[in-house]
Amino acid sequence: MFQSVSSTANGLSRESSSPHNPKDSLIDHSEGQLFLSEAFKIILDEVLSKGTSIQQKVCEWKEPEELAELLDLELRAAGEPHHRLLERVRDVAKYSIKTSHPRFFNQQFAGVDYHSLAGRFLSEALNTNLYTYEAAPVFVLMENEVLKSLREQIGWTEGDGIFCPGGSTSNMYAMNLARFQLFPEVKSQGLCGLPRLAILTSSQSHYSVKKGAGFLGIGTDNIIAVNVNDGGCMIPEDLDEKIKLLKSQGAVPFVVSCTAGTTVQGAFDPLEPIADICEKHKIWMHVDAAWGGSVLFSKKHRHLLKGIERANSVAWNPHKLLLAGLQCSALLLQDTTGLLKRCHSANATYLFQQDKFYDVDLDIGDKSLQCSRKVDCLKLWLMWKAVGSSGLEERVNKAFVNAKYFLEEMKKRKGFHLLHEPEFLNICFWFKPPSLRGKEGNPDYQEKLAKVAPVIKERMVKKGNMMIGYQPLKNKVNFFRLVVLSPQVCQKDMDFCLDEIERLGNDL
Amino acid sequence: MFQSVSSTANGLSRESSSPHNPKDSLIDHSEGQLFLSEAFKIILDEVLSKGTSIQQKVCEWKEPEELAELLDLELRAAGEPHHRLLERVRDVAKYSIKTSHPRFFNQQFAGVDYHSLAGRFLSEALNTNLYTYEAAPVFVLMENEVLKSLREQIGWTEGDGIFCPGGSTSNMYAMNLARFQLFPEVKSQGLCGLPRLAILTSSQSHYSVKKGAGFLGIGTDNIIAVNVNDGGCMIPEDLDEKIKLLKSQGAVPFVVSCTAGTTVQGAFDPLEPIADICEKHKIWMHVDAAWGGSVLFSKKHRHLLKGIERANSVAWNPHKLLLAGLQCSALLLQDTTGLLKRCHSANATYLFQQDKFYDVDLDIGDKSLQCSRKVDCLKLWLMWKAVGSSGLEERVNKAFVNAKYFLEEMKKRKGFHLLHEPEFLNICFWFKPPSLRGKEGNPDYQEKLAKVAPVIKERMVKKGNMMIGYQPLKNKVNFFRLVVLSPQVCQKDMDFCLDEIERLGNDL
Repeated sequence: MFQSVSSTANGLSRESSSPHNPKDSLIDHSEGQLFLSEAFKIILDEVLSKGTSIQQKVCEWKEPEELAELLDLELRAAGEPHHRLLERVRDVAKYSIKTSHPRFFNQQFAGVDYHSLAGRFLSEALNTNLYTYEAAPVFVLMENEVLKSLREQIGWTEGDGIFCPGGSTSNMYAMNLARFQLFPEVKSQGLCGLPRLAILTSSQSHYSVKKGAGFLGIGTDNIIAVNVNDGGCMIPEDLDEKIKLLKSQGAVPFVVSCTAGTTVQGAFDPLEPIADICEKHKIWMHVDAAWGGSVLFSKKHRHLLKGIERANSVAWNPHKLLLAGLQCSALLLQDTTGLLKRCHSANATYLFQQDKFYDVDLDIGDKSLQCSRKVDCLKLWLMWKAVGSSGLEERVNKAFVNAKYFLEEMKKRKGFHLLHEPEFLNICFWFKPPSLRGKEGNPDYQEKLAKVAPVIKERMVKKGNMMIGYQPLKNKVNFFRLVVLSPQVCQKDMDFCLDEIERLGNDL
Repeated sequence: MFQSVSSTANGLSRESSSPHNPKDSLIDHSEGQLFLSEAFKIILDEVLSKGTSIQQKVCEWKEPEELAELLDLELRAAGEPHHRLLERVRDVAKYSIKTSHPRFFNQQFAGVDYHSLAGRFLSEALNTNLYTYEAAPVFVLMENEVLKSLREQIGWTEGDGIFCPGGSTSNMYAMNLARFQLFPEVKSQGLCGLPRLAILTSSQSHYSVKKGAGFLGIGTDNIIAVNVNDGGCMIPEDLDEKIKLLKSQGAVPFVVSCTAGTTVQGAFDPLEPIADICEKHKIWMHVDAAWGGSVLFSKKHRHLLKGIERANSVAWNPHKLLLAGLQCSALLLQDTTGLLKRCHSANATYLFQQDKFYDVDLDIGDKSLQCSRKVDCLKLWLMWKAVGSSGLEERVNKAFVNAKYFLEEMKKRKGFHLLHEPEFLNICFWFKPPSLRGKEGNPDYQEKLAKVAPVIKERMVKKGNMMIGYQPLKNKVNFFRLVVLSPQVCQKDMDFCLDEIERLGNDL
């Protein structure tokens, strides 16, 4: 094994035929490429083969103290030999969670797409900073094309956008743009002297709205929570009333942050009536479609996002349902007036020189609040090229099929109790062990039920063959949230999930 | 070639022995791993071998329209076969800038470290979201260890910190923390009703201070530019006076953002006297050491950062001088009171449940403003393990040796004129073509000199065998900035750089 790789690496290093003395350069390309090739084999073996096999564990639980000792994390003055470093690569893989395992249901990302992964390896190897055409010619053009294609899914033939390091950042950008459009002077003068600004969002929206309000100097008290129905969808009438109330108090509601696919319940706010209200009150409409945006690829299910084309901005994370890999989050704008650049630009002369020999509009970096910005478009582009929009549609549809199957099977079993009929891929449910069934009227019932999910979760993680999250929600005590999204998941995995929860919780 | 990889991939897929039908799952692991292995070979060949060879170009310039056509960027309904996708991988590599080429001097990152790159591939394959111990056991512990080791280089035995998506974000976090420490109510109530807040930073600090002031609602007008000396270092006396003036106006200066290694001149603000002033006025002292922080590894040169241990916060990007790969930016804090978490937390119950079976202090995600957060510690950890602190020290020292050599050779040649004697790795200089020599007194001299660098740059990029940046600075017209940092650079490359500028510019 070592021999064949060695010859490959040597072959490559002959090709590079650098006259640079490896000892002088401190880094030996030939040795380095050999190491990388060996590490690649370990990645294939541990992460991509074993890590996606249901014969193997999702997680190998260790207590923190034990894990720290196993990993020998300490950084020292002296370096280590290659064989030791390869053991370290293997250890890191071994004790990490296998997020591509078909029984990892813990978060809103899962599965692996090999084309995306190839794009990610290539992005890493190229080590490109996406700010100027000069430094990133391919990716400036590619990001524009990918953003354009995402906008087309929304229904916009023109507009603007940028990839951000995660959906939270995309949401915060939208808040900043909404504020800047209304009060351009904020950029130079700050909030000092402005009236009280307010943000409206449903009580089930993502916590990044809170974080953003704090960071942007608006304050979390100025987030007005709009009521939701039992399914977790914003109630437009309540939105309208709260806007009126804010205005009557002299506050300026400047953005409505809707959610297309809430984190816990997977609810879609009704975008059409919300758009009417935003239009009436002249308020920026943002849609946090980080989770639900990818449904736009499905002709069958895209009605869930009806009205999204009326938004001013959309945050959409293809790293979730489309498997593009962390992170891939697009902020998309309907604006064609250069708002994004005007709002964020600082015109640094060392980077964005105006006397370059090419069209400096291609230097897109000043649209971002980052200076160094990773290339997040290549992985999505390559994956999209590989399977086409139709392949992405199939993935979305398959996730719905899986979720429906789970739901039907769950309903056949005693002990499983739905929080609410889902409209998306989040299935929220309680598991009631036999000891609690029929005791729903007892005064300590809720207290006892609340303890079930954490205990099952502990047993599950320590056993290691499945992962699923739980949480409380307002007055509803701890319940499980199954998120089905990976196309690698099959009905057998759904059955396993139900069986396993019974196995782990029947004695409670 | 195809055959040998095919057998490897098949061998691996046998190991995974998933009972899942590949057709059902939409993603075939065996085919996918084969594709990834082929893509890996192209990456080795095009990016890491050819891309680091001086026999090959740094860039393959194409006009945007031509490049767009070559790349065939359009995303369509149907997918493409594997051989076509592999051509696309090769094309993306071919037309991208080779930032690891020994003659890429264009930015403050360059070179390749293979251990880091292996860590990056592993991070991508694991696709981990770094927010909870449950989801990222290895990386929660590893990030803590790496941050601790970075803090030790500063001289702190305790403290806090987090990896951010780039130095700009790290700087903005510091600004937000400084504000929160002084006015904790900002988080909930916003800036409304607070006095005018002001930020002090040198006129040559990074543009992220401006971007941050806009984003945080403070306003760019409330950044007070402190004067610098000819070398670009902040003048402490001017800082003291400006703080006094602000206070007398009723403003609240709440943070001094110093720079350790400015972007253009590579200047180090004098941290000791600045720390005295911050202490006297009780103002948060932040050091943007994104570029210069890595000098701390060098016993010989770390005096440049004398006093850094007195700062409240430090931003440090190992992706620059240490070659850790984009992005790797640490925000480091002296604080031990949990300020970072208090300032940023939103306590989302679906992620940060308090009734988990392990110590929930390990769920570090609420310290961040991001929700999805990439693993940026593994690449640095693996590289550090590979070469040790002593190996990192060697790299830093070698960069200084290279810069010194360039400087000495430059001074021997006519036509090269230093902006200022450098103290770091940025060498800023004008090239005066023969036609301009001796004409320094002419009224149109500056105007003509300003045009030299852009023309040389255009010719350079179109020729493709070197890249170096240029910019104006205040009243100084366009000059080149050489940034030497990669240990793969040798004296021959320095000579080449000088020769090439002469070749490209002598006729101007």
